[in-house]
Amino acid sequence: MRLTGSNFIAGTASSESAQGFTSVNPQTRRSGDVQFHNATAAEIDRAARAASEAFQIMRGAAPEKLAALLDTAAAEIEALGDELLHTADMETALGIPRLTGERGRTTGQLRAFASLLREGSYVEAIIDTALPDRQPAPRQDIRRMLFPLGPVAVFSASNFPFAFSVAGGDTASAWAAGCPVIVKAHPGHPATSELVARALNRAVEAASVPPGFFSLVHGSTVEVGQTLVQHPLIEAVGFTGSLGGGRALYNTAAARPKPIPVYAEMGSTNPLVILPGAARVRGESIAEDLAASATLGTGQFCTKPGLVFLINDADTPSLIERLTGEMALRQSGVLLNEHIEQGVIRAVTATLERGSVSALTGGTIPSHSHYSYANTLLQTTGEAFIQDEALQQEHFGPVTMLVLCQSPDELTDAVRALHGTLTATIHAEESDLPQAEALFSLLREKAGRLIWNGYPTGVEVVYSMQHGGPYPATTAPGTTSVGMTAIKRFLRPVAFQNMPDALLPEALKNANPRGIWRIVNGAHTQAAVS
Amino acid sequence: MRLTGSNFIAGTASSESAQGFTSVNPQTRRSGDVQFHNATAAEIDRAARAASEAFQIMRGAAPEKLAALLDTAAAEIEALGDELLHTADMETALGIPRLTGERGRTTGQLRAFASLLREGSYVEAIIDTALPDRQPAPRQDIRRMLFPLGPVAVFSASNFPFAFSVAGGDTASAWAAGCPVIVKAHPGHPATSELVARALNRAVEAASVPPGFFSLVHGSTVEVGQTLVQHPLIEAVGFTGSLGGGRALYNTAAARPKPIPVYAEMGSTNPLVILPGAARVRGESIAEDLAASATLGTGQFCTKPGLVFLINDADTPSLIERLTGEMALRQSGVLLNEHIEQGVIRAVTATLERGSVSALTGGTIPSHSHYSYANTLLQTTGEAFIQDEALQQEHFGPVTMLVLCQSPDELTDAVRALHGTLTATIHAEESDLPQAEALFSLLREKAGRLIWNGYPTGVEVVYSMQHGGPYPATTAPGTTSVGMTAIKRFLRPVAFQNMPDALLPEALKNANPRGIWRIVNGAHTQAAVS
Repeated sequence: MRLTGSNFIAGTASSESAQGFTSVNPQTRRSGDVQFHNATAAEIDRAARAASEAFQIMRGAAPEKLAALLDTAAAEIEALGDELLHTADMETALGIPRLTGERGRTTGQLRAFASLLREGSYVEAIIDTALPDRQPAPRQDIRRMLFPLGPVAVFSASNFPFAFSVAGGDTASAWAAGCPVIVKAHPGHPATSELVARALNRAVEAASVPPGFFSLVHGSTVEVGQTLVQHPLIEAVGFTGSLGGGRALYNTAAARPKPIPVYAEMGSTNPLVILPGAARVRGESIAEDLAASATLGTGQFCTKPGLVFLINDADTPSLIERLTGEMALRQSGVLLNEHIEQGVIRAVTATLERGSVSALTGGTIPSHSHYSYANTLLQTTGEAFIQDEALQQEHFGPVTMLVLCQSPDELTDAVRALHGTLTATIHAEESDLPQAEALFSLLREKAGRLIWNGYPTGVEVVYSMQHGGPYPATTAPGTTSVGMTAIKRFLRPVAFQNMPDALLPEALKNANPRGIWRIVNGAHTQAAVS
Repeated sequence: MRLTGSNFIAGTASSESAQGFTSVNPQTRRSGDVQFHNATAAEIDRAARAASEAFQIMRGAAPEKLAALLDTAAAEIEALGDELLHTADMETALGIPRLTGERGRTTGQLRAFASLLREGSYVEAIIDTALPDRQPAPRQDIRRMLFPLGPVAVFSASNFPFAFSVAGGDTASAWAAGCPVIVKAHPGHPATSELVARALNRAVEAASVPPGFFSLVHGSTVEVGQTLVQHPLIEAVGFTGSLGGGRALYNTAAARPKPIPVYAEMGSTNPLVILPGAARVRGESIAEDLAASATLGTGQFCTKPGLVFLINDADTPSLIERLTGEMALRQSGVLLNEHIEQGVIRAVTATLERGSVSALTGGTIPSHSHYSYANTLLQTTGEAFIQDEALQQEHFGPVTMLVLCQSPDELTDAVRALHGTLTATIHAEESDLPQAEALFSLLREKAGRLIWNGYPTGVEVVYSMQHGGPYPATTAPGTTSVGMTAIKRFLRPVAFQNMPDALLPEALKNANPRGIWRIVNGAHTQAAVS
């Protein structure tokens, strides 16, 4: 397909600005041919107005219409075939196998939201029927359910060009909620973004949804994102990326005349604790698997294990030696772009400047024709970690840091000092159970997902998934960006008082025509209201 | 009971500051004898640390312990007897009958949250069991549920000295969630606040809950509230009050190094639309009931109908005449305090300065020994309302404004121009149905609760209640401050991956020992996981 480098405003290509950028092949550091056009304020305004108009039409639509849109979008993405995979690989160097898997996850989650809509109980219908004889005053009939918020701005991430990008989890869940989406494409994979945007445009058309239900804007500057978040017709923001970027958008949204929610998933250290029994029994395999997890996708996962806590005992030196060897031996991969390369260099340099940190392997910049960074294992002490918040900086790339504690108490204090994070993992054997239980209890306050004898990379897209966590992991710890409950971010409750059955939305009608689960006078039921 | 004017820091009276204030009797404008002490930064810090310690202990407690606390709190408030009612009446002039009802609502909602805890399904347990044979990789066992956020700051409102104050809905729902509470008492009823705080202290002690689970701080300055919201150990804020106050706290919380959610319920205009059929058939009774609703509690309800939309036709003059008469004839009540008196004077004066508004009755300051304002009916045109956002200012007091539209289309445009609000009401007869349905659809985007042929004052405390709405009605339109789902504001999800059953929280164990409703592999069920 010939790419145009355009923005897509409600289905229409638009390239008003001469300012723009090209995609860069991370394998060669060379720029592509296509010029992508930064969106202008006028283009963003048209996208927002079209989204608002589309919302007015679609908010009355049956859930099946949205479900069909999601299914069609999945099929249109699949119909892009190998061209999509090759384009994404050219822009990200993530490799065809990984990208094939990620495409499956992306289409799978679009279809999973379609199923959620068809099942229908996600609207959280709650009904309390009238009590006309209640004293001193009758009780009114009150019924509530969830409705969409309105147009949503979605900021793509660089590290998942499908699953956290144009048709990723934010778009899928916002669409499922009934919200039009304006995607700010990540400048790291603009060609991939254009292909997916064209697929979504076709899905919008095929599903007879108003074209403003989807727009794509490009931008290599912060202004494009800021303009989008400041637009008065935008009602919510989804974001995956760095702490700096997420916090800047959060601040902008909070300073609007009408503040709006920003669901930003940002940096994370993903602590992993290896307790003595596990180190003794499984030290070798943990070292291998941990090195694999820390370098997976060149360490460019939000859930990469970035901090490894150990108690320094007789079994520790061999585990560290093995881990150091594994990190050193594994081929260092390609980084996504120059920004990430410079970021990991800066972050590791800053950490090594703290006197308490040494590099067991890596910490150096290999001179490759591709963007890269050496697999790096840092080491510090529990004492230093407890005292120095700077050691909680994320190193986005193939870098992890050992925190060597002198005692179980010091380990506990180090865990207590942790900032918010997406995940926390414990490796433990039978002999470690009491300590493991106590640490998990502490970690529950720090993380969105707790993992037992496993690794944080690999996020199941299931109903029960929680991909979120206390700040700075996210700006909204009550929400998730992965899994079915991600839809809740884009919904809000409305109650109806004494409304005639004919005027009630289907989900609240006495007959319960959709057969959804509801809470009626306190009881969970699929039955009609009699 | 002899009052001390102290703050209560984790159960202990504390009066470190000489700065403070007295309560003022709104009937006489005279100050009381007791000096209430503004909390110092050191007192606030002690309260926050004690709350954090209490949280560490209580977050492992069984739901029954919290339920017992809530029940005991209700009983202790009742045990205060008439002294509580008389003290509150002295400080608010709301009258014994209203205060008796409000006390019942307050104890009722404490007990309703206890029931919610005992039933247990509010934790939203979702379980997806492992699929070890899934290709290309096994699916992990993932289970999630909701856990408390941590210490919560609650800001009392002046207009509900029980139900939105020390032991009001924010405290009840935060406690039910498992969060310690620090209440910033409203300076309008400090003696009432001290009585209730003592009752809560007794409940905390009787239920063997750590004393830091509740603190009360006084403050007649904005500094006290700002210091509290800035404290790093505070995890969320509940607020009921003015737009200015709520927004200031929201801004402070958003600017923290670690931002926290602010659930602020603020100003609201509560539009009420009278369609032509209703005006014709029930004009008189609507005029009577509307005047009663607009002046109930001297108009000092968040849900007071502040804007009344009419289409100007043959039946309109008699309805307006009747409404004007009803407003003029009703005895004007006592306002809560000088701040509210000055506020309503300022707001009505500013509105009348817009050329398009006239006063049909009131708009004048009666010279009474008590705080007061004349029952006031303002009138403007649909055209002016559409063009002038300033006409959406709330007039907190016995004031409502007619918006006279020249056509159904102008009415639609006026409704479309509305800002966010807690409630919206339509009065309609059979002949109005098509228009009513279209307007309700528009109003759904503006309000948290839609009312059919009723009045917005009077908020049922039921599971299905939604007391919230788009900004400026609240800072968090996805949440409610009244009803059982208010608890969700103070909870966040945590997922567990491959956790041994013995380490899982009760709500997620295979056996489902509490018999709660869960979603297991997509199905709603109370069954155990087999």
